[in-house]
Amino acid sequence: MKYEISNRMSDLQGSAIREIFKYAADPEVISLAGGNPAPELFPNEELSKIAERVLREQPVLALQYGITEGYPVLREAVKARLAAKENIGREGDDLIIVSGGQQGIELATKVLVNEGDAVVIEEPSFIGATNAFRSYGAELLGVPVEEDGMNIDALEKVLSEHENVKMIYTIPTFQNPMGVTMSVEKRHRLYETAKRHGVLILEDNPYGELAFDGVKTPTIKSFDEDGIVMYSGSFSKILAPGLRLGFFCAPKEIVQKVVVAKQCADVHTAMLPQILAAEFLKEYDIDALIVRMRANYAHKCATMLSAMEQYFPKDVSFTRPGGGLFIWCELGHGLDTLALSKEAVKEKVVFVPGNTFMADISKPCSALRLNYSTMTDERIVEGIRRLGIVFEKALAAK
Amino acid sequence: MKYEISNRMSDLQGSAIREIFKYAADPEVISLAGGNPAPELFPNEELSKIAERVLREQPVLALQYGITEGYPVLREAVKARLAAKENIGREGDDLIIVSGGQQGIELATKVLVNEGDAVVIEEPSFIGATNAFRSYGAELLGVPVEEDGMNIDALEKVLSEHENVKMIYTIPTFQNPMGVTMSVEKRHRLYETAKRHGVLILEDNPYGELAFDGVKTPTIKSFDEDGIVMYSGSFSKILAPGLRLGFFCAPKEIVQKVVVAKQCADVHTAMLPQILAAEFLKEYDIDALIVRMRANYAHKCATMLSAMEQYFPKDVSFTRPGGGLFIWCELGHGLDTLALSKEAVKEKVVFVPGNTFMADISKPCSALRLNYSTMTDERIVEGIRRLGIVFEKALAAK
Repeated sequence: MKYEISNRMSDLQGSAIREIFKYAADPEVISLAGGNPAPELFPNEELSKIAERVLREQPVLALQYGITEGYPVLREAVKARLAAKENIGREGDDLIIVSGGQQGIELATKVLVNEGDAVVIEEPSFIGATNAFRSYGAELLGVPVEEDGMNIDALEKVLSEHENVKMIYTIPTFQNPMGVTMSVEKRHRLYETAKRHGVLILEDNPYGELAFDGVKTPTIKSFDEDGIVMYSGSFSKILAPGLRLGFFCAPKEIVQKVVVAKQCADVHTAMLPQILAAEFLKEYDIDALIVRMRANYAHKCATMLSAMEQYFPKDVSFTRPGGGLFIWCELGHGLDTLALSKEAVKEKVVFVPGNTFMADISKPCSALRLNYSTMTDERIVEGIRRLGIVFEKALAAK
Repeated sequence: MKYEISNRMSDLQGSAIREIFKYAADPEVISLAGGNPAPELFPNEELSKIAERVLREQPVLALQYGITEGYPVLREAVKARLAAKENIGREGDDLIIVSGGQQGIELATKVLVNEGDAVVIEEPSFIGATNAFRSYGAELLGVPVEEDGMNIDALEKVLSEHENVKMIYTIPTFQNPMGVTMSVEKRHRLYETAKRHGVLILEDNPYGELAFDGVKTPTIKSFDEDGIVMYSGSFSKILAPGLRLGFFCAPKEIVQKVVVAKQCADVHTAMLPQILAAEFLKEYDIDALIVRMRANYAHKCATMLSAMEQYFPKDVSFTRPGGGLFIWCELGHGLDTLALSKEAVKEKVVFVPGNTFMADISKPCSALRLNYSTMTDERIVEGIRRLGIVFEKALAAK
């Protein structure tokens, strides 16, 4: 039988990052590709105690069906935390617990975007989100990202030229893949521009708590008096990604439809991860854990940057993140980093080629993304050394 | 701002069952509505020990990102179990772990069904599945269900009259909501009919292991030599639903696209539930647990049936299931069970009105679904007694 795949899915390929994970399973391979948090920081002893106790003492809560909106204790704790730390959550907003930040993005798209509608993305942007948009037949309109975030003049131009834009997707803080942060001034301009054009904003903020200096930049959602911002958050980078826990805060009318879409998607998020997070927030000090993460990532980022200065050809340029997990590298000279990534695999080091993050992934790209959170110092330095050799060779052949 | 919901989602309402759950939270309410397994059978002590150990000893496995296809140990265990017990898994098939059986159905729909394509459903059928189909803009074509399963002549007629049918959705064993089982002869006729028309079958089998007499009816997937059957399975009814664990077995080309869709949906299923299931299968005797479930449900079903004989008006007819969780009741006399369900709430007993399970939920329906797995014997009898009064009154008013 010939299987006819739906129009929305027929051209969609798996994320290159997920494919690269398969190489990364080889312990000899140095992976600078994924976005895996530092495993040495997982609070596994604490979670082990909570899991043992909850399953023993509250079997019905932990193992029976739950409600689609999320475990009420966790939902209230997340709402309180967002209100206190981010000034998020107005009268007209609601919040749903989702199975990872990814699910909030996917369900918002299902609920809002018709086939043929457009979504404005930062270019480059997170492949998980851009693929979710593609999977509902959305047209992607790219807006360039600068050192201080999205180019708002370019955004204005795109919105003026397109009638079919449904939402603007942005990762304003420690952007994936560039590692840059949008200035406060640009956040306000972005908000006002979206408002003027009657377009929703989807603000994705998985790395907001991971500023090396601990200083928070106000979220766009924090000044959402008009109910035009949807906010996607995650426990993946502040607790553990394997739990698949995120949250989605948006105007009530949108959240209500997201609840219906989530009933269809997975009924509700698994109870045990929800209870683990809720109990961890209650019994332990997640802020202290986040402080340790910041220090760890600041150190690893500095280690990677100094290795890049030592080993990379002199005209390779790169970002200098103030937090998050990623550095963006520009090789220039018309190099194609997709081809280079295959050379790098031979040297047992992997990264994500830049084309992955573009609206049109088929165009060659001379940039690439590096991750510093996953590997040890030693492997970061060795990985960068090997990449330096690959890049030198490629440039010499030009 | 006025929020424009996508065409696919704008008319879709939440499942009535999930709404009824909100009443069921009142401990005085007797819920015959949900499909919750018997909580007294959850192997929570065993799962508590596994969770404590795994989180302590294997933090990276339990808490880091996993692969989209599923935890390899669980995936292999499920494949082996399906091969041994159900003769499922041909050369051309593959299997993915999903976040509950519901997710397999939703992702298969996303991958295969264009807006305007039709899906044939048994009428009545499972609201979770029919809403997943609706959420991708599918047209639903109902085929009546008889004591021995779907009416295959009616199916033949529907397929002859419609060019746009993408798949046939069936729950052949202990059907939800009717509790009936498709005969082996009809399973073969269904398979041959689908094959002749070039239409896929989506076989949903969450209750297949719950035959009161322990006798298995061969699955349709077990005679799939042509690669036309997709099979959705679940741990919800044989282990615990709060884990949100299911599996989806289908031809490789379809599973590959489902993997891409799952990357967009939730990246992967939460690791801890997957590891709990894998370790439980390895260390404990799940078949012994299932034997206890069968005995429990057989007893509760008999309790409910005998209470129905005692308390229901004489001309109410109902199915007599050989397994699963549900009894289907027909009141006749043009009664509208949606209206009656509101009367029942006043008596603090809830059930699911039959219209919920139909292709067109707006048409009044005189049937309803009763669940016997969740409540104790005492509450089952008391719930049926109260319903008997509600039904007597309604009939007397006719």
